[in-house]
Amino acid sequence: MKISIERSVLLKAVAQAQSVVERRNTIPILANVLIEAEGDSVTFRATDLDIEVVDRAPAMVDRAGATTVAATTLHEIVRKLPDGALVTVVSDPATGRLTVESGRTTFSLATLPKEDFPVMATSEYASNFSAPAPLLRRLFDKSKFAISTEETRYYLNGVYMHVADGEDGKVLRCVATDGHRLARIDADLPDGAAEMPGVIVPRKTVGELRKLLEDDEAEIAVSVSETKVRFATPEITLTSKVIDGTFPDYSRVIPQGNTRRLEVDASEFAQAVDRVATVSSERSRAVKLQLGDDKLTLSVNAPDSGAAEEELAVAYGDERLEIGFNAKYLLEIASQVDRENAVFMFNSSGDPTLMREGNDLSAVYVVMPMRV
Amino acid sequence: MKISIERSVLLKAVAQAQSVVERRNTIPILANVLIEAEGDSVTFRATDLDIEVVDRAPAMVDRAGATTVAATTLHEIVRKLPDGALVTVVSDPATGRLTVESGRTTFSLATLPKEDFPVMATSEYASNFSAPAPLLRRLFDKSKFAISTEETRYYLNGVYMHVADGEDGKVLRCVATDGHRLARIDADLPDGAAEMPGVIVPRKTVGELRKLLEDDEAEIAVSVSETKVRFATPEITLTSKVIDGTFPDYSRVIPQGNTRRLEVDASEFAQAVDRVATVSSERSRAVKLQLGDDKLTLSVNAPDSGAAEEELAVAYGDERLEIGFNAKYLLEIASQVDRENAVFMFNSSGDPTLMREGNDLSAVYVVMPMRV
Repeated sequence: MKISIERSVLLKAVAQAQSVVERRNTIPILANVLIEAEGDSVTFRATDLDIEVVDRAPAMVDRAGATTVAATTLHEIVRKLPDGALVTVVSDPATGRLTVESGRTTFSLATLPKEDFPVMATSEYASNFSAPAPLLRRLFDKSKFAISTEETRYYLNGVYMHVADGEDGKVLRCVATDGHRLARIDADLPDGAAEMPGVIVPRKTVGELRKLLEDDEAEIAVSVSETKVRFATPEITLTSKVIDGTFPDYSRVIPQGNTRRLEVDASEFAQAVDRVATVSSERSRAVKLQLGDDKLTLSVNAPDSGAAEEELAVAYGDERLEIGFNAKYLLEIASQVDRENAVFMFNSSGDPTLMREGNDLSAVYVVMPMRV
Repeated sequence: MKISIERSVLLKAVAQAQSVVERRNTIPILANVLIEAEGDSVTFRATDLDIEVVDRAPAMVDRAGATTVAATTLHEIVRKLPDGALVTVVSDPATGRLTVESGRTTFSLATLPKEDFPVMATSEYASNFSAPAPLLRRLFDKSKFAISTEETRYYLNGVYMHVADGEDGKVLRCVATDGHRLARIDADLPDGAAEMPGVIVPRKTVGELRKLLEDDEAEIAVSVSETKVRFATPEITLTSKVIDGTFPDYSRVIPQGNTRRLEVDASEFAQAVDRVATVSSERSRAVKLQLGDDKLTLSVNAPDSGAAEEELAVAYGDERLEIGFNAKYLLEIASQVDRENAVFMFNSSGDPTLMREGNDLSAVYVVMPMRV
C-alpha cells in the first residue's frame, strides 16, 4: 500500500475511527485501525466488537493494499503534524512496518496482519430509510441524559428507538429512562421507516453517532434489524449491535391525569435550582418546591451545612403543593428546554411529575419526586 | 456583623482565599474562611496552617463583627449569584448562623466561632523590599517546572529564592531542581533586598503567589525571614512558612566547560520533540539527538510500537555528537524560551547539557542526559 493524503483529511478520518477503540484491550488487534487503500480512496475501520466505524477519505492511491496499525498512535502522529502537510503512508509487507512520512519527519509503525482484524459480519436489515441529521440529533440529544448507568438493568443502558403512535399518527420515537426520570421524544416518521423494529441503541453508540450529526444539511441513511443498527453519511458508516433485551412498557409511567400546571422560565428555574442546591449535602441533593399563587419557592435544608431559599415568579393557579426532587434531575430536565417556557404538570407530592416545553407534546419528560 | 458588598468584588476576594483551603480537612475549622468586617472593608482569611491568605475588599459595613463559614460553600454560592447583584451578609450570634442574601435568594450557613480560627503568628521579617509583579512572575514561572515532587527530598519541593552573585553584581535568584533538570533564573536585585536570607518557597505557595502577579503594574511588597515569606498587594497578603531545609549547592551542577553550541528555533524544536515522542513507550520517553553539520536529527526507537525520526535545520559547527534525553524534560525546557532561539551547550553524551535563550545568562537550564 502506498497513499498520499492531505493531513486534515487524514486527521478527520482517523479521529472518527479511533474514538471507538477502547483504551484498554486484552485483544491487541482491537487497538488497531484497519487501513484499506483502493481506487481513489482509503478507508479506516475500527471496532470494539460491538460497534464498527468505517471512515472513507479521498486519497492518491499509488499502490492499493491493506494493513492494521495502532489507532491512538496513528491519531496522535497525524494530530501533531503541521496543518496543510501532505502525508505519505506506505506499508512494507517484507518488514511488516507502516511508514508515515511528512516533510522531514518519518514514522515507522508496527503492524498486525489485516487478516486478523475482526470485520463485522454484514447483515440483512429489515428497514432502510433516510433521516435529516437535525431530526436524529434532537431525538438522541434530548433523551440520552436519562439513560441508566446501572449495569444490572442492561436493557435501560441505551435509547429505545422505535415507531409509536403519536398525537397525529405514527412517529419515530426515542425513549430513555433510569427508573427515576424518563425522556420521550417524538419526530416525524421518515418515509420507509414504518416497518422498523424497535431497537435499544447502546449508550456508546449514541455518543459515536453524535459525531455524524453535526452537519445540519446531512441526510443520514439508517438501517435497522432486530440485532443491529447502522447510521451512514457518504463518508462514515457506524454499525452497532443493539442491546439484546426488552425495553419496559414506558407508557404506564407517563402520568395522564396530572392537572396542576406550573409554567416557568426554564433558565431562571435552572439557575435557582443550582443556587439553592449549593448547600445540599453530597448524598441527598433534595430540593423542595413549594407552589402557591403565581409563586414558586425553592428550598434546601441540610442540617450540617445550612439552608437556602429562593423565590421565583411563575404562572400557577392551582392549590398549594409541596414536592421534593433530586436537584440534578431537575437541572438536567430544565436544560433540555430550548424554545419555550418549561411547563410542569403535577399531581400530588408522591406522584411522578411531567415536564414539557410549552404545549409541545413531542418532547415529554417524567421525573419521580423524593421525600423532603 | 452586617455588610453589603457587590457580588463581583465579593467573588474575587473569596476565590483567592478559598483556593488555599485544602479539600480534605481533619480539622473542621480549616475548611472555613474567617470573615472580619470593620470600618469600610471586610477581610477574608483562609489557611492550611502553612500558608495564610488575607484578602481585603471594600464593603458597606452596617455592623462590625467576625465569624467563620465553609470556604468552598461560600465561594460556590457567590459564584452562582447573578453578576452585578448586591449581596448582604449578616451573622446572627444567637443562632450561630450566617445569612447571605441577594435578590430573592437567601442562604443560611453554619458557622464556627472566630476564636477557633488559627490566625498565623506575626513575625519579625529580616528583610522587606518591593518588587514589580513582572519581575517575580518571571522568576517563579521559569523555575517552577523543575520543582521536585519527591517527598523524601523535601528540600527540593520548592523554589530556592536568594541573593546571589550574577555576571554584573548581586542578583535576586530563583533556583529549582529535581536532580534531573535545573532552572536558574536571575533578576535585578530590588532595593533593600541585599540582606534577604535565602528561603525555599514551597510549591503550593508558588501556585498561590502566581495569582497576585497578574497585574503588570503592580508592586509586590516582599518580606522574608528565616522561617517565613510574605507577598502582599494592597488587597491580598499571602504569608507562608518556608521549607525547613538546606537547598543543595546547585552551582556545582551547572556545567562551565560545555563548548559544543547548538542554536535552534525553540518552537520548531519543541514540536519536533513532541512528534517523535509519540511512538515512545510510556516508561522510557527517551529521545535521541544526533548532531551533525548544521543538522539535528531527533529520533525515537521503541521496539514495541515503532520508530520516528525528524530532521531540523540548526546552527551547529562542532564535531558529531549523539545524546539522549527524556522527551518531557526537553519539552518543558524548550517551552520556557520566549524571546530568542534556544541555545544548547553540550559536552559529551554523558554530561549535563546547558540551555539558555540566545546569549542571555539570566535564565539558565540544565538537563541530565539519559542513555539511548
